Amino acid sequence: MSDVQSFIDGSLGRFRSEMYDFLRIPSISAKSEYDENTRAAAEWLAEKLGGAGLEAEIIDTAGHPIVLGESRAAGPDAPTVLIYGHYDVQPPEPLDLWTSPPFEPTERNGRVYARGSADDKGQLYMHVKALEAHYATGTPLPINVVMIAEGEEEIGSPNLVPFVVEHAERLACDIVLISDTGMYAEGLPSVGFSLRGLAYFEIHVRGANSDLHSGEFGGSVANPANTLSKIIASLHAADGSIAIDGFYDDVLEWDQATRSQIASLPHSDDEFAADLALHELSGEAGYGTLERLWIRPTCDVCGILSGYTGEGAKTVLPNHAMAKVSFRLVPDQNPDRIKELLDAHVARLDLPGVSVEIHELHGGRPWRASVEGPAFEAASEALEEAFGTKPVPMGGGGSIPIVVEFEEKLNATALLVGFSLPGCNLHAPNEWFSLENYEKGIGALARLYDKLGRVQAGT
Amino acid sequence: MSDVQSFIDGSLGRFRSEMYDFLRIPSISAKSEYDENTRAAAEWLAEKLGGAGLEAEIIDTAGHPIVLGESRAAGPDAPTVLIYGHYDVQPPEPLDLWTSPPFEPTERNGRVYARGSADDKGQLYMHVKALEAHYATGTPLPINVVMIAEGEEEIGSPNLVPFVVEHAERLACDIVLISDTGMYAEGLPSVGFSLRGLAYFEIHVRGANSDLHSGEFGGSVANPANTLSKIIASLHAADGSIAIDGFYDDVLEWDQATRSQIASLPHSDDEFAADLALHELSGEAGYGTLERLWIRPTCDVCGILSGYTGEGAKTVLPNHAMAKVSFRLVPDQNPDRIKELLDAHVARLDLPGVSVEIHELHGGRPWRASVEGPAFEAASEALEEAFGTKPVPMGGGGSIPIVVEFEEKLNATALLVGFSLPGCNLHAPNEWFSLENYEKGIGALARLYDKLGRVQAGT
Repeated sequence: MSDVQSFIDGSLGRFRSEMYDFLRIPSISAKSEYDENTRAAAEWLAEKLGGAGLEAEIIDTAGHPIVLGESRAAGPDAPTVLIYGHYDVQPPEPLDLWTSPPFEPTERNGRVYARGSADDKGQLYMHVKALEAHYATGTPLPINVVMIAEGEEEIGSPNLVPFVVEHAERLACDIVLISDTGMYAEGLPSVGFSLRGLAYFEIHVRGANSDLHSGEFGGSVANPANTLSKIIASLHAADGSIAIDGFYDDVLEWDQATRSQIASLPHSDDEFAADLALHELSGEAGYGTLERLWIRPTCDVCGILSGYTGEGAKTVLPNHAMAKVSFRLVPDQNPDRIKELLDAHVARLDLPGVSVEIHELHGGRPWRASVEGPAFEAASEALEEAFGTKPVPMGGGGSIPIVVEFEEKLNATALLVGFSLPGCNLHAPNEWFSLENYEKGIGALARLYDKLGRVQAGT
Repeated sequence: MSDVQSFIDGSLGRFRSEMYDFLRIPSISAKSEYDENTRAAAEWLAEKLGGAGLEAEIIDTAGHPIVLGESRAAGPDAPTVLIYGHYDVQPPEPLDLWTSPPFEPTERNGRVYARGSADDKGQLYMHVKALEAHYATGTPLPINVVMIAEGEEEIGSPNLVPFVVEHAERLACDIVLISDTGMYAEGLPSVGFSLRGLAYFEIHVRGANSDLHSGEFGGSVANPANTLSKIIASLHAADGSIAIDGFYDDVLEWDQATRSQIASLPHSDDEFAADLALHELSGEAGYGTLERLWIRPTCDVCGILSGYTGEGAKTVLPNHAMAKVSFRLVPDQNPDRIKELLDAHVARLDLPGVSVEIHELHGGRPWRASVEGPAFEAASEALEEAFGTKPVPMGGGGSIPIVVEFEEKLNATALLVGFSLPGCNLHAPNEWFSLENYEKGIGALARLYDKLGRVQAGT
């Protein structure tokens, strides 16, 4: 490994600079006006894969393209590792809260601030550089590598599963390696053991055929914004649990060992609250903060809009109200079932004088891993060598719906090794990524590829 | 009156065209970027008052100016009528729902469509033309006239009461005549007997110091948008009444005669709903639609905003949510008291992990009139002569907070004679005004000035 690590150490300035080029491309998959930029990010990445010794290809889908890279030099008896990441990013709004522009990477205090730096372009690009370090130094990889980078993760990966099914033979692998999660704390690397799923809905409440004067009509007709508030308020019980009949039917009650392991992690509610400038935390009764984040489901409004929201007092009775409502799911909940339960819940409410529509925008199943076995051990060793600290198993509050799909469709084991840090403003203004983690993490990944050579192929 | 009416009949084309010039000026008082336009509307109006035989003056206030016109030719023994109206308008948003541009008056089907056509520039300008008809034909007015047109009605008239108090001697009058309301139905003129008051609040709920990722943080912190929905939902009981302790303490229980008179008016819930494309109406249990509109208070969300509201599924946990909430009040409720009750109500709710602020944006007291006396009779006669139908007493769901203030500060009787029609989209896209009512109404007002000469001055 010494050649590989020396090459990495000698290339860090260029590795940063190239990541910044990648981050400058506004590959916002949710907004069609950025479609050309999103494709440009795919093309940029494909070119860099070539420089890392992979045969790269851009494969069109019904939506944004998939970048596929392959290195089969290890031969048919070696294990195959599929590296997955995404080159698309969340919309950057609200823009006025960014200290520096979201698509102009800016270094401050050992961090780079930019949309996509942590989620996921920065982390995806670490793999490209770790592979390049082998290729450039002529160090053979003991594994075959297939990399797929998609451009639709932030909009629910609508075309990825069909792609995986269609190309299942070409994508056949033993391990699916993903760097789209975080470390538990600065200096404390982590390997993931769970992810939450997602069921994301847009609820529309409609009233009259136009907005009305709140004096001329108020009191005689239902107000869609009041009704929408009633719907949203009905989703929670007083104890912070979710008040939809049947919602917890499929929620796994975790074993005491897992809960004890979670409880053993260094954590302070006071510090967690202080970092967010909150005077108190809030959540489901009976569970600690890490449990609320990792092994319990949620219901959060992500956006709500109705009527007049500009300056001053416009006395309008709006005829339409919309909310985006996201449920984070835990094993063994299923987003399709949640849609049925939500529909039934809203149908039972007394909502006179309006019509209600619920659309599912995004769904993904939750995931949990075994924390034993050669892949998990390889990751632990590689992280400890690179960071000098033994990693901890870590739950994930976020969702990478494709993880479950990969495991099922490819009959492989997923391995989550991520490098973002708590507070890095994922999906929010001022997203950042630690430059130390970027640089140490490239070394960790290069080591990990070598250690994964131990995994028995085809099992 | 025949000269006056002939003059009106011969000038209708010009009267329309001038009104359209007035409507083209976007005098949006709530938006500071339109301040110059708002002043331009005042200047335009002042010039037209001169042409109607009034001495006109523009008087600056701390906000938008007041246009004052006077005609004292009837002498100190004649009664004085103060005509009040407003030259400012509501913001036109949402712009995409207007069939023709809001500030380009457009005739369709006997109506003119434009912001301010009904509320209130079109109606205010009818007085200018009715006065001009006397002046141009040399027909003496049997009343002294003071006209005040303000530019802040749509933002709560913050500077009008101080103005009235300061100039009480100059504004001394017997009758305050206002055309800023409607007719009960097409062809059925009306004289107002009640107006609702208004208490308009902006509620802000704040959480963490930035927006958060709904996966990384969801479940562990309060969501301001969910909390705001809970607050809004708590404002109504299941029977449609308002669930704020003490809210109904000052609500007048109207006498059976008034309720019977209301019940005798031609009204169909089915038609009312069909006009709005609603399958059913909705409101407080135990009251009919006209009662819900005229003599019962309301609570309506006028606007709500939080988080991401654009295209697609952004999984953000917002750190701020805002709602504009309007209460329409009835005699003898008071907006200051409603603010206290709302504050106390919200303070009693269990809202962990957020901060809540409630700002009052706008307040006005409700009003009710006697439906007897010489002024009311004069209005009835004038309307019957001009429209050929005996007018009905009519309640008002909207608010003109200054009416109560005029009565109290000037010790005068308010007379509400308005010409807009139901469904005219006040405060909404596609506001319109009936051209027939504009033209017949100018005749009715000209007659009314003559009949108000009967009122005993100084009583």
